[in-house]
Amino acid sequence: MAKQFRKGSLKNIDNTGFSTSNNTEGGRLTNKDGSINLRKTGMPFWERISLYHTLLRLPRLKFLLAVFLFYTVLNTFFAGLYILIGVEHLKGLIPANDVMTNFEQAFFFSSQTLTTVGYGHISPSGLQANIIASLESFIGILSFALVTGLLYGRFTRPRAYLLFSHNIIVAPHRSERALMVRLATYKNNHLTDMEAQLTISMYIYDNGQKVRRFFPLPLEISKINSMALSWTLVHPIDENSPLYQMSYEEIADANIEILCFLKGFDDHFSNIVQQRTSYTFNELVYGAKFLPVFHRSEDGSTTILELDKINAHEPAKLPEFEKSALNA
Amino acid sequence: MAKQFRKGSLKNIDNTGFSTSNNTEGGRLTNKDGSINLRKTGMPFWERISLYHTLLRLPRLKFLLAVFLFYTVLNTFFAGLYILIGVEHLKGLIPANDVMTNFEQAFFFSSQTLTTVGYGHISPSGLQANIIASLESFIGILSFALVTGLLYGRFTRPRAYLLFSHNIIVAPHRSERALMVRLATYKNNHLTDMEAQLTISMYIYDNGQKVRRFFPLPLEISKINSMALSWTLVHPIDENSPLYQMSYEEIADANIEILCFLKGFDDHFSNIVQQRTSYTFNELVYGAKFLPVFHRSEDGSTTILELDKINAHEPAKLPEFEKSALNA
Amino acid sequence: MAKQFRKGSLKNIDNTGFSTSNNTEGGRLTNKDGSINLRKTGMPFWERISLYHTLLRLPRLKFLLAVFLFYTVLNTFFAGLYILIGVEHLKGLIPANDVMTNFEQAFFFSSQTLTTVGYGHISPSGLQANIIASLESFIGILSFALVTGLLYGRFTRPRAYLLFSHNIIVAPHRSERALMVRLATYKNNHLTDMEAQLTISMYIYDNGQKVRRFFPLPLEISKINSMALSWTLVHPIDENSPLYQMSYEEIADANIEILCFLKGFDDHFSNIVQQRTSYTFNELVYGAKFLPVFHRSEDGSTTILELDKINAHEPAKLPEFEKSALNA
Amino acid sequence: MAKQFRKGSLKNIDNTGFSTSNNTEGGRLTNKDGSINLRKTGMPFWERISLYHTLLRLPRLKFLLAVFLFYTVLNTFFAGLYILIGVEHLKGLIPANDVMTNFEQAFFFSSQTLTTVGYGHISPSGLQANIIASLESFIGILSFALVTGLLYGRFTRPRAYLLFSHNIIVAPHRSERALMVRLATYKNNHLTDMEAQLTISMYIYDNGQKVRRFFPLPLEISKINSMALSWTLVHPIDENSPLYQMSYEEIADANIEILCFLKGFDDHFSNIVQQRTSYTFNELVYGAKFLPVFHRSEDGSTTILELDKINAHEPAKLPEFEKSALNA
Repeated sequence: MAKQFRKGSLKNIDNTGFSTSNNTEGGRLTNKDGSINLRKTGMPFWERISLYHTLLRLPRLKFLLAVFLFYTVLNTFFAGLYILIGVEHLKGLIPANDVMTNFEQAFFFSSQTLTTVGYGHISPSGLQANIIASLESFIGILSFALVTGLLYGRFTRPRAYLLFSHNIIVAPHRSERALMVRLATYKNNHLTDMEAQLTISMYIYDNGQKVRRFFPLPLEISKINSMALSWTLVHPIDENSPLYQMSYEEIADANIEILCFLKGFDDHFSNIVQQRTSYTFNELVYGAKFLPVFHRSEDGSTTILELDKINAHEPAKLPEFEKSALNA
Repeated sequence: MAKQFRKGSLKNIDNTGFSTSNNTEGGRLTNKDGSINLRKTGMPFWERISLYHTLLRLPRLKFLLAVFLFYTVLNTFFAGLYILIGVEHLKGLIPANDVMTNFEQAFFFSSQTLTTVGYGHISPSGLQANIIASLESFIGILSFALVTGLLYGRFTRPRAYLLFSHNIIVAPHRSERALMVRLATYKNNHLTDMEAQLTISMYIYDNGQKVRRFFPLPLEISKINSMALSWTLVHPIDENSPLYQMSYEEIADANIEILCFLKGFDDHFSNIVQQRTSYTFNELVYGAKFLPVFHRSEDGSTTILELDKINAHEPAKLPEFEKSALNA
Repeated sequence: MAKQFRKGSLKNIDNTGFSTSNNTEGGRLTNKDGSINLRKTGMPFWERISLYHTLLRLPRLKFLLAVFLFYTVLNTFFAGLYILIGVEHLKGLIPANDVMTNFEQAFFFSSQTLTTVGYGHISPSGLQANIIASLESFIGILSFALVTGLLYGRFTRPRAYLLFSHNIIVAPHRSERALMVRLATYKNNHLTDMEAQLTISMYIYDNGQKVRRFFPLPLEISKINSMALSWTLVHPIDENSPLYQMSYEEIADANIEILCFLKGFDDHFSNIVQQRTSYTFNELVYGAKFLPVFHRSEDGSTTILELDKINAHEPAKLPEFEKSALNA
Repeated sequence: MAKQFRKGSLKNIDNTGFSTSNNTEGGRLTNKDGSINLRKTGMPFWERISLYHTLLRLPRLKFLLAVFLFYTVLNTFFAGLYILIGVEHLKGLIPANDVMTNFEQAFFFSSQTLTTVGYGHISPSGLQANIIASLESFIGILSFALVTGLLYGRFTRPRAYLLFSHNIIVAPHRSERALMVRLATYKNNHLTDMEAQLTISMYIYDNGQKVRRFFPLPLEISKINSMALSWTLVHPIDENSPLYQMSYEEIADANIEILCFLKGFDDHFSNIVQQRTSYTFNELVYGAKFLPVFHRSEDGSTTILELDKINAHEPAKLPEFEKSALNA
């Protein structure tokens, strides 16, 4: 009972953008990749999605496949048009009795027009064929501009490239306990003016009722000038922590989710980049400490950061709860 | 009289960028789409408009039409030039007695040059034709670069994609009244670090004269970390509100306009995005409450947001004005 | 004497980036277009200029001319190469005894290769011609990419498009005097979160010596939410002003320059934009007031802003200096 | 001893992003060009590098070479494919018994397809050749889009173009000593809202143990409105400085590294730009003063900044340490 009282005295926050009701939202709030676990309805599909956002997020292979498909469909469409008006209007093309052969030739003429390669051994002749070919090269330029723009946009999209430890750990820290997450940039990018924010979503008893509340998890250091090496976020579990004096079982019962938000400035993109992730109870390791992740190179001239050890931790004994606090 | 006194004690603001004079501005201040209701004169048209801003804002269909028109006009212009120097300078073209046929062929040769498809069954011959063709392909590349750049710029323009409730409502809220607007992102975009600002423009009596004044409408929560679900902006109509104790008739008389300004950071654009709208008295619903807009999915694994219910509200009885306040 | 004392008690600022020494800098500090009046030496020209900055700032006509020149020079260069290896390696070209005719044909073949139009009535034959043509089309694509990128970059460069009044005026204002500048956006762009800053550079007597000092000129309103209409920057000339109680002659003697800095957020560029200008004594009008610049449209539905009246002002009698202040 | 005590009373900072342990990091922390002296391991090479960051940072010549290599390799690959299916499928190509001659012709046909120049004197014939050519022009457009995008991205990448003095000097300053760095923009770019930050990394004795600590070096002026001329960063070595009363030998022993961070807003890029550098003990000049770097032009109309004098300094006698301080 005493614990609930103390917890109640901590100020919960209501500006997370999530609802505090515990029967309208389903599943985890934020997915591991930082996206919100939400589905939207009530609007036609095409108005509800941003094609640009979708195409930026598509995995690389799927994107290339989509582009290739688009190219093929467009070619097929125009080949169909040339067949429709009669392939005899394509000078240089030898009409065959076989529709497939004609289609083949029309298809390749179309692709030469769409890409503006225009060899010219086949060329449009007559008003209809010329109109179609003229339109096709016009459409080809416009659509290739979109496609190549997207390709470049994907390639150059500002991203934080942060690697988070898979687990969030409860570690001994200065005779107390602390919650820790470790992270590093895993590419040859450099971030400055980094800010980190941890927020916990947990169920507490309010007048005997189980309700969801959000609390900030204050960090020992929440801003660093430069993401030079790795960074371990440390939230000391002291009187200002909503997790103060909570046992493993109590944490399990609270249906926690820890939202992790990172923000920085990328030198080369000259842009602010963000990355989010979240940890549920399944990803919490109770009683552990992180193993070193960087060391001096053998010749002493540089520092080496081992990215595969970002989550490396070993069991560690946690300090007991203070008696006085328990009695309070 | 007492009311006017109280209202006068609220600090009005003069940094909205709008004038406080009520006889120089006409109509509503801000249009529903967030643009300013203003016309500029006194400068030549072409210096007064930013072609880029205009082309970005043009509806999609009109934009594509404009581009197509531009392509046709450019082709026609160059076809005219080829006719002028004589189509016999286009090798491979069979001159006809019919001007229309010649123009047709020159037009399509022009389009092949402009798009750089250059089949080559027709090719320029002689100095004049070569100079024109060389210029045309040069101009073609430059103008298609602008057009395709614009197409891509439109496609990737950072936008907030916010859906606002059509109405602003006066709803019961914690034994008081509150002004509420509801909004959500309607695409698969994700905004963080959201800020909202409501400002009211209203006519008040100052020394017996009706003058326009601007007041901020403080929000219970004006910043949220993440635009995760929907967001209801809540302005409590208490002693700090310029609308405190105002009856429906008094609000109607005040010729109000509520300016609504939203700002956030888009993850994928990595850019700040803004959206504005405004509500006049016609869009105010006095005595209503919003119906739920999201619920848990049937399998409990995610949350569902119904965008078509963003404006859904039902009549609600407003609490009476406090007696003490009326007597004050 | 008393005046110098009072002025001395105002805090001058030393973070303008300009030097306070009055014998190392020459002419006005900031040009009318906002650029710094400075020349750099001691580095080779090409290391000292940013080609990108230069090409962005070039007037439109000069830029197009430069691009056209670049295209011509590149064509001439490659035409020269084809002549060098012998025009007989260009199949389809009819070699002439006349060098000029050969050059002409080589030049146009080159332009067809550079723009990738490639009609094909002339085509490279043999190793040398093929290598050159292959390189040329490669270089053509790369250089046209730069050129078209620049063209688009110029077209879409975030700019504030602010129109400043040509004069800065000393106007009567609430029984005092005030320094005023008026400005408006002259295109169909919309700026929000505007900030303005006025700084004065002036010579004062410090221990009998004439030295340059910088003072901020505090504005009545220095931030507005939205650049909706026009904006008049008002600096009241009161006890906190470095110009307090200064006569016209004293101002003339102080060799003043008023630096004006504006900053805002453009909705469509989704970017911060800035614009600077400066006013010297020649551009100061002592005793005037601005005439109205906007009015309601005839049908009352909108507001009209007359850009050609942004500098419109008429003579106005300034209030006398307060006696008490003069006696102080 | 007294000194160590005093130093201990200064607040060291732990948010630099570097580790304070002195046996895990090797060599200098930050390289002269501002990059972090760090090597990453534990992830496959391709996942560990951002191709985009790498290609942006590559020196210009290397980049152009890489692009040319890419073009050649792609051409060779497709030439190989045409050889494989038989060059007789390329109409217009005269098959030779010599493989090299065939390859040559296939290679140049490939380059005409890749760049979409498509003269057409050679053209694909038959299903296989057409499929390959169709794919090649498609791939050509996509890869040239990436390459030209990168070329333009490199050309327009927001950069600060700051030139730092090679040395950091300890100079006499207002009867004290001060640490000084001088810098200027060396291109025709203009930066506003500049911020500078100096941080020192040094070894101090903590309980008899040598440990690394970081201290801020407060600047007299750390923000300027406009990077108008040159800027001399001045850190007064007073009681608030970690270097207070330290002799040359003591500084040498402390294994210092001074991290220098600059940030500003570029008008033309409309973007924040940053630049970093660092100074080790080898780059410190003890007892010197900077020589003037700008002067008035002969005609008095402008100011001249001599970039080659940015590091120009001459020996200068430093004021003695205050006795009282030493006794303290």
